[in-house]
Amino acid sequence: MLYAAVEAGGTKINCAVGSGPGDIRARTRIATRAPAETLAEVAAFFDAATAEHGPVAALGIASFGPLDLDRTSPTWGHVAATTKPGWAWVDVAGPLGSRLGCPVAFDTDVNGAALGEHRWGAGQGVSNLVYFTVGTGIGGGLVIDGRPVHGLSHPEMGHVRLRRHPDDDYRGFCSFHGDCAEGLASGPAVKDRLGAPLNELAGDHPFRDVLADYLGQLCAHAVLMLSPQRIVLGGGVMNAGGLHRPAAERMRHWLAGFIPDERLGRDDFVVPPKLGDDAGIAGAFALAIDAA
Amino acid sequence: MLYAAVEAGGTKINCAVGSGPGDIRARTRIATRAPAETLAEVAAFFDAATAEHGPVAALGIASFGPLDLDRTSPTWGHVAATTKPGWAWVDVAGPLGSRLGCPVAFDTDVNGAALGEHRWGAGQGVSNLVYFTVGTGIGGGLVIDGRPVHGLSHPEMGHVRLRRHPDDDYRGFCSFHGDCAEGLASGPAVKDRLGAPLNELAGDHPFRDVLADYLGQLCAHAVLMLSPQRIVLGGGVMNAGGLHRPAAERMRHWLAGFIPDERLGRDDFVVPPKLGDDAGIAGAFALAIDAA
Repeated sequence: MLYAAVEAGGTKINCAVGSGPGDIRARTRIATRAPAETLAEVAAFFDAATAEHGPVAALGIASFGPLDLDRTSPTWGHVAATTKPGWAWVDVAGPLGSRLGCPVAFDTDVNGAALGEHRWGAGQGVSNLVYFTVGTGIGGGLVIDGRPVHGLSHPEMGHVRLRRHPDDDYRGFCSFHGDCAEGLASGPAVKDRLGAPLNELAGDHPFRDVLADYLGQLCAHAVLMLSPQRIVLGGGVMNAGGLHRPAAERMRHWLAGFIPDERLGRDDFVVPPKLGDDAGIAGAFALAIDAA
Repeated sequence: MLYAAVEAGGTKINCAVGSGPGDIRARTRIATRAPAETLAEVAAFFDAATAEHGPVAALGIASFGPLDLDRTSPTWGHVAATTKPGWAWVDVAGPLGSRLGCPVAFDTDVNGAALGEHRWGAGQGVSNLVYFTVGTGIGGGLVIDGRPVHGLSHPEMGHVRLRRHPDDDYRGFCSFHGDCAEGLASGPAVKDRLGAPLNELAGDHPFRDVLADYLGQLCAHAVLMLSPQRIVLGGGVMNAGGLHRPAAERMRHWLAGFIPDERLGRDDFVVPPKLGDDAGIAGAFALAIDAA
């Protein structure tokens, strides 16, 4: 059984056809430009791939957001009110599903990454998982009982407020909230403050303690609000290295012994992703497999 | 089909037998004392009730916590490391289930209340719901796809950190965190600050704005972390009245337009409970029905 998978990001769209992330028969990477030409190129890839490899049973799309995930809404499958020029209220799922003639599952990029890590990566063996990506923004994906969570819309964990670190007076750059988590701790916030990305700073730069504190607060919020069995911290900022353990220590500082479970103190609670850059496309495959 | 329901609180334990919360054949209220004598009285009630009305198909217990909800754990069904004298690591589910000879569902009081409101009260018609109780403490119950959520343990939403209101310098009373949400906004925190419970203060007392802000932040956290379709705010502090709308306004202030869904602005998003004091026992019935 073959599936189609789309990981739609703000700068590139990864497309694949295969029986799963470990058996990809065709794949491509398309630059994200204006919606019409971009989606036409995606469709053309799937036309060629299905002509060569045969039809697919379902399509999974893990997309940048915000998205309309309400199956009863007339704009289900659309990108919602994004600030990305031209993409607000663009129907992504509809035209691709029609072209492929198959069921479509549509979810956020971070829910997709959470699902991919849950099924094939760092989230194997648990039923409830939070995946944070800390990169150009901060996003949180949530898998409960093996399924991504939707509700009113979808979680937007990166925009939660944190307490200020006493050594940090950066105003924050989020256009909605100023100093929410994304405004304080994402890649652009780090670079705006320090003039360089984290991986160009010395390993003992004092800002690392500030950043670890913010990441620890974010993890503490997740533990208290969601009680996940594991937290995966991925994204470009985390790739700079050495932050998982300090973030976990700050998480425990903020929880202050209230959650005494010894698992919080083990190195398998706050972990890096295992799938790396493939988490998104793996998640899109998982969405497709579950939709078939 | 009959079910047994137990709502175990720190001061009283409500027990009932019936086909559901609308058809209760026998009920009693037992003072929460030392575990052995209290649980013996609970068991004696069920012995008498089942002798009179017949056997039950399942038992649902919604209990004060913290609890061990891990079905694979040797201490599943026990109260965990509570500060309530004598109750730490007491097995509640085991002896009652053996006595009744039926399947047992065991969950937190707030998950039970969330489930009860979801099935028969203010949460009808949505699939994802958060229930906050704001009383002697603050707790949050979470229902997703109609089921209460467990993970590492269970959510402890009342202990999340909020940003300080500029007019509030109260130190907070939580023995773990000082000024977490419970430490700042629960009933004892209000009384410790003002010398009187909220319902004894004038309706325009300026502290109401501070409290509404904290409740609004708590709701904003829930929206961003969980994306619920409805938030039910119950408990003794909320019963003082007039706080739901100001809390919803402060929630929207903190979200700052980021979640543009018009539902956030409607009066059916942040709502009072419909079951009142019966939410807990209703939730225990729901747990039993689902376990049967």
